[in-house]
Amino acid sequence: MANHPPESVINAIREADSFLVVTHIYPDGDALGSQIAMGNILRSLGKQVYLYSEETVPNLYAFLPGCEGLDTALPDLKNIDCVIALDCGDRLRLGKAMVNLLAVHPFVMIDHHTGKKKFGDHVWVDSQRASTGEMVYDIAVTLDADIDPDTAYCLYTAIVSDTGSFKYSSTTAETFRIAGELIAKGVKPSDVAGKLFDNFSVNRLQLLKAVLATLNLHGENSIAIIHVTQDMFEETATIAADTENFINYPRSLASVKVAAFIKETQTDLISVSLRSKGKECDVAVVASKFGGGGHRNAAGFKIRAENIADVQEKLLQELLPLAAGR
Amino acid sequence: MANHPPESVINAIREADSFLVVTHIYPDGDALGSQIAMGNILRSLGKQVYLYSEETVPNLYAFLPGCEGLDTALPDLKNIDCVIALDCGDRLRLGKAMVNLLAVHPFVMIDHHTGKKKFGDHVWVDSQRASTGEMVYDIAVTLDADIDPDTAYCLYTAIVSDTGSFKYSSTTAETFRIAGELIAKGVKPSDVAGKLFDNFSVNRLQLLKAVLATLNLHGENSIAIIHVTQDMFEETATIAADTENFINYPRSLASVKVAAFIKETQTDLISVSLRSKGKECDVAVVASKFGGGGHRNAAGFKIRAENIADVQEKLLQELLPLAAGR
Repeated sequence: MANHPPESVINAIREADSFLVVTHIYPDGDALGSQIAMGNILRSLGKQVYLYSEETVPNLYAFLPGCEGLDTALPDLKNIDCVIALDCGDRLRLGKAMVNLLAVHPFVMIDHHTGKKKFGDHVWVDSQRASTGEMVYDIAVTLDADIDPDTAYCLYTAIVSDTGSFKYSSTTAETFRIAGELIAKGVKPSDVAGKLFDNFSVNRLQLLKAVLATLNLHGENSIAIIHVTQDMFEETATIAADTENFINYPRSLASVKVAAFIKETQTDLISVSLRSKGKECDVAVVASKFGGGGHRNAAGFKIRAENIADVQEKLLQELLPLAAGR
Repeated sequence: MANHPPESVINAIREADSFLVVTHIYPDGDALGSQIAMGNILRSLGKQVYLYSEETVPNLYAFLPGCEGLDTALPDLKNIDCVIALDCGDRLRLGKAMVNLLAVHPFVMIDHHTGKKKFGDHVWVDSQRASTGEMVYDIAVTLDADIDPDTAYCLYTAIVSDTGSFKYSSTTAETFRIAGELIAKGVKPSDVAGKLFDNFSVNRLQLLKAVLATLNLHGENSIAIIHVTQDMFEETATIAADTENFINYPRSLASVKVAAFIKETQTDLISVSLRSKGKECDVAVVASKFGGGGHRNAAGFKIRAENIADVQEKLLQELLPLAAGR
């Protein structure tokens, strides 16, 4: 059974009247869904709420009801009784406003990531949770707050987004319990899945075609590498964000232990995403050798380099022994 | 709330001692998962069980624990007290053994499909269910039967398979409730998802590359068509079964209302799969004009034709007015 929200977190929320709710920079579906939902939940309790985001909402998540309520300007922090940071286990990922935000007390931090040093006055970190959305749901239930259809929609999106539609190993019985309760409130699973997954532009599909054509295999097909160049982006009128999830194609090969996606994101700057399956290959170790980081099954790094072939060669020197279990 | 199993079905199962459990021809994950699980459930109640399938288990589902218990030969039907047909709402889909099977009484039919004439002595059809696997789960609970880890694994696979991992509109709160209970019995969602979805062979990914290269759009990007030729199969050493789910790529385009996949399956025989989104375009109507059938959002037909271009032209004559709402 998952942990319940700690009393100190619940009390901090009960006692404050005006809130600033934030999440991590480059927000994903769990970050934004949790943030908007938390705003709705607090408002339903009669609280005043500000939602801050360093950047405007990415196109992919513009379907979230209430995302127009996010502000890229910080409110006057004198008017804020309490900051709640969601899905952001690393203080640096609070972005440019970090120092200002951390100066507000109480600072409540709710997250499901592991590893980083905790920060904030009242902290609820549960790494057994598949998403922060689940935790926000439990907070609403504990506070006896209303979960209206829009809030349910945002929380369900958060869960689907961070579990790859219930496919990742983080998915638990608790995830299903909460998803079922949100569906019972009227969320249509096919609607959310359609928004999150059936959202390819024609240009993006052309880019996928070009990227799949670069697939090359190594180490008895245990390593699959794809890449994207600036030329491909130009030819298909796409941007780096359009390559999201492309690494799942080489990863989906049955024989593959490690997948890599080499991206020419800027002139002379190449970023590499790494994925592995199961417990055998720890790609975070490889990423750290290149000054990057991540988790066992998902990591990445950036490297100054002239061309993709050089990066691939250096990368293979690390990946070949890893995939061979040496 | 979903319907419970009818008493007549439960009583027929309680009273018989030896069972033959069958499903539809060309079985999918829901068919096989439900069939194997039902066998385990009956055996846990001390019953004798035979599992029959016209064909051997497709490679994709060879990971199901217990699939080696399926027999392609019918047992002596004199030894069978009761036949249970799962996930097979159309008697013709019982395959070559149909007449022999229907001669056994009681014949129990459990299915979640709609539309076809019901058959059998004791029938439980619930079209509100996303999968037959859910219904088999409820039968086990009603019978107070043990659901061991292998059985839970088969039932969870059935549900994931028939909901596209909880993405299809058929997914209900009930689906999530049952999935959660199966997970609580030890099924690992990422394991099942990996088996069902991360199972691409290298050849199959090469085929996908070739098929995506055929993408063409019509009707202001509301119609997306892909095709596969015999040459592509030969060049990539693949077979028709390797194209499963390829139609989801054109379907995933945000602008697309109707997707079509034209397959040169044999010389002079071309099969066409059609998909649509939502309630606007009924592709079953189009398929029926070509002598095929299906549902509003998923249909297909086969046509004798010399080449793909001819088929595409005829098809577009039907699809263009459909997608334009005329």
